[in-house]
Amino acid sequence: MKIKSIKGGVCAPLGYKANGVHCGIRKNKVKKDFALIVSEVRASAAGVYTSNLVKGAPVIVTKKNLTDGCAQAIICNSGNANTCNADGIEIAEGMCKLVESVSGIAASDVIVASTGVIGQKLSLDPMKEHISELYEGLGDKSLSAAEAIMTTDTVDKQVAVEFILDGKKCRIGAIAKGVGMVCPNMATNLIFLTSDVAITPEMLQKALSEDVKTSFNMVSVDGDQSTNDTCCILANGLAGNELIDKKGLSFSRFAKALNYCTVTLSKMLAKDGEGATKLIECNVFGAKNVKTARTVAKSVIKSSLFKAAMFGADANWGRVLCAIGYSGADVDVNKIDVTFGSRAGSVKVCENGYGLDFSEEVAKKVLSEDEITVDIDLKSGNFKASAWGCDLTYDYVKINGDYRT
Amino acid sequence: MKIKSIKGGVCAPLGYKANGVHCGIRKNKVKKDFALIVSEVRASAAGVYTSNLVKGAPVIVTKKNLTDGCAQAIICNSGNANTCNADGIEIAEGMCKLVESVSGIAASDVIVASTGVIGQKLSLDPMKEHISELYEGLGDKSLSAAEAIMTTDTVDKQVAVEFILDGKKCRIGAIAKGVGMVCPNMATNLIFLTSDVAITPEMLQKALSEDVKTSFNMVSVDGDQSTNDTCCILANGLAGNELIDKKGLSFSRFAKALNYCTVTLSKMLAKDGEGATKLIECNVFGAKNVKTARTVAKSVIKSSLFKAAMFGADANWGRVLCAIGYSGADVDVNKIDVTFGSRAGSVKVCENGYGLDFSEEVAKKVLSEDEITVDIDLKSGNFKASAWGCDLTYDYVKINGDYRT
Repeated sequence: MKIKSIKGGVCAPLGYKANGVHCGIRKNKVKKDFALIVSEVRASAAGVYTSNLVKGAPVIVTKKNLTDGCAQAIICNSGNANTCNADGIEIAEGMCKLVESVSGIAASDVIVASTGVIGQKLSLDPMKEHISELYEGLGDKSLSAAEAIMTTDTVDKQVAVEFILDGKKCRIGAIAKGVGMVCPNMATNLIFLTSDVAITPEMLQKALSEDVKTSFNMVSVDGDQSTNDTCCILANGLAGNELIDKKGLSFSRFAKALNYCTVTLSKMLAKDGEGATKLIECNVFGAKNVKTARTVAKSVIKSSLFKAAMFGADANWGRVLCAIGYSGADVDVNKIDVTFGSRAGSVKVCENGYGLDFSEEVAKKVLSEDEITVDIDLKSGNFKASAWGCDLTYDYVKINGDYRT
Repeated sequence: MKIKSIKGGVCAPLGYKANGVHCGIRKNKVKKDFALIVSEVRASAAGVYTSNLVKGAPVIVTKKNLTDGCAQAIICNSGNANTCNADGIEIAEGMCKLVESVSGIAASDVIVASTGVIGQKLSLDPMKEHISELYEGLGDKSLSAAEAIMTTDTVDKQVAVEFILDGKKCRIGAIAKGVGMVCPNMATNLIFLTSDVAITPEMLQKALSEDVKTSFNMVSVDGDQSTNDTCCILANGLAGNELIDKKGLSFSRFAKALNYCTVTLSKMLAKDGEGATKLIECNVFGAKNVKTARTVAKSVIKSSLFKAAMFGADANWGRVLCAIGYSGADVDVNKIDVTFGSRAGSVKVCENGYGLDFSEEVAKKVLSEDEITVDIDLKSGNFKASAWGCDLTYDYVKINGDYRT
């Protein structure tokens, strides 16, 4: 199947409009902080959320609103997570009611999300003042929405693809934000996907739940898992394909297109990790099962020592072996090969668990690129997995040493 | 029981001598890199080691040498971990034989340890050249030995205590090194303890294994667990107390004195964490069992976001709640109280899971000290635990971005 990358983000699929404005939750008047995405018609909807016991109030309200498997709009603010607030549920429900008040879409058909500082009261007032402006400005404005959900992100994150089902052009689009407190068990911070595919809520949820295991769940920036992680998808059926209501060719194609979008976003999220200068992709091969492959890949990508070495372009492969060793995965240390790579070439540094003589000069050149791969061959089976992360830099510390001010 | 802090480190107990010299494994000629501790007589010995699947060769040799529960000397180099080397076992055994060659102590009665870079060949030659100098210089030189095992440590770590058993003065002394790759499941990097207490190898092992659960296992600097973590204790019986061969008052007293030493060292290790400017102590109260208390304390102390906030003296308590939430511990989020403290005072920031109004000015003052406590009351039982860590700073990144050069 051909998957074609297209422009337009969440507005690429038929029947979606978006907007983002500054409403005043943030003091910085240039930074948008209030986003809205609306589908022309009620859509199938699915979500995956943080598994943190401390859950943001919007996560609780969104879960409740999606129990019927349908939704029509997504409202989101940045600058305040609306988490650990005594009136959090009331505020999150209030945001849904604001959407209802201007659009007529039932509050229970609204997905709500918030991102920012935990434990600070969120007032509805600035949102009340700007909801009309936000709604009336809806258009082909995926970028505005993408900007409005950013926190410490340095670039907007959008993707869209086109593919064919039953001879009909279908599309999936998405916006995301991530950057800090990124280490999901279920989803990475905020990801909103839209599609014009016709699919039942059940099959949409199945596709999304399966997808995140190989995409957002394999991203780590700092090992901290957010209280507000939310990944939601709307699919409004306007593409006109035959309704997907079971597994089969169409479902597989949809899943493949979805995975193209989510893996693309996963890399964007890792590369824009707080303070990051490099995207690191860890590919594990030859594992005896998929769990082992994923555990090893995640452990390496999460190691602070390995991440700091990558910042310094230092081929300190002992830290890779070390992170494999404490991962808890059942591996044979004496079979492990490790190779570093980038567009500047590749260098094998470890074979069967022991160090190889390699050119430090070549290794430095390979690791000085801004996209690095570390390939780990366990030579014990046929399973593989990839994980994405970033280097650990001075700027990560700077950004997080004084985030609230 | 009175536990009196005394001077002398590993040489404080009767019958121990130590020394440290520069042998040339490190290029820096001012930095000692070769240490020896010897007991006058054969001693009961016990150890706990890394649980990393990738184990340094010295760990394997020491475990083998301690199978009979006895030892008489400790040999250690810094600058090279002797890990992931094809000839590692041979080299580690060679180090034990060097001790035998100069002292007559059987190689199988030697504890061997190495710390430094993983995966670089370690030559015996510089150690062969300097073993006589090292042995002949043995004396009341705990500091020299403590210095010789340091890597990126900025200060030597020694402790010694005196206490009474059966009317006899008894002592425990220790040296330690830690700093990076510190997140033990069993022990933190290298800790060597000596004692003149008379105790069977079995009871010594029991005391040590139990002790590390509340001391070194509760320390985290960076969440990375070393391949070479080793904590060993010798007890040579020269104090003349009645042999401890079962649980009872003497065993409890010994365990209490041991825990004083190990907790003191744990705090030293955390405070001197790579790049650290602050010691952070996390005290969890009111847990429904000890496992919950330990899990929560460790999760908070390990959170990169929390650690960076402490560096910035930012009372971002939401990150504490967040780390509790993803710890996997079964807690009631709506009962949690959080208080920050230091010698400058204390400030309660969260009650029943929700934020309190507090003075940012006072919080800043409290968190600007170099020893910080974060007290977490789960209000669900009577168990407690403490964990120790440090802040995450620019210097951690700097030190680890280019460690090998």
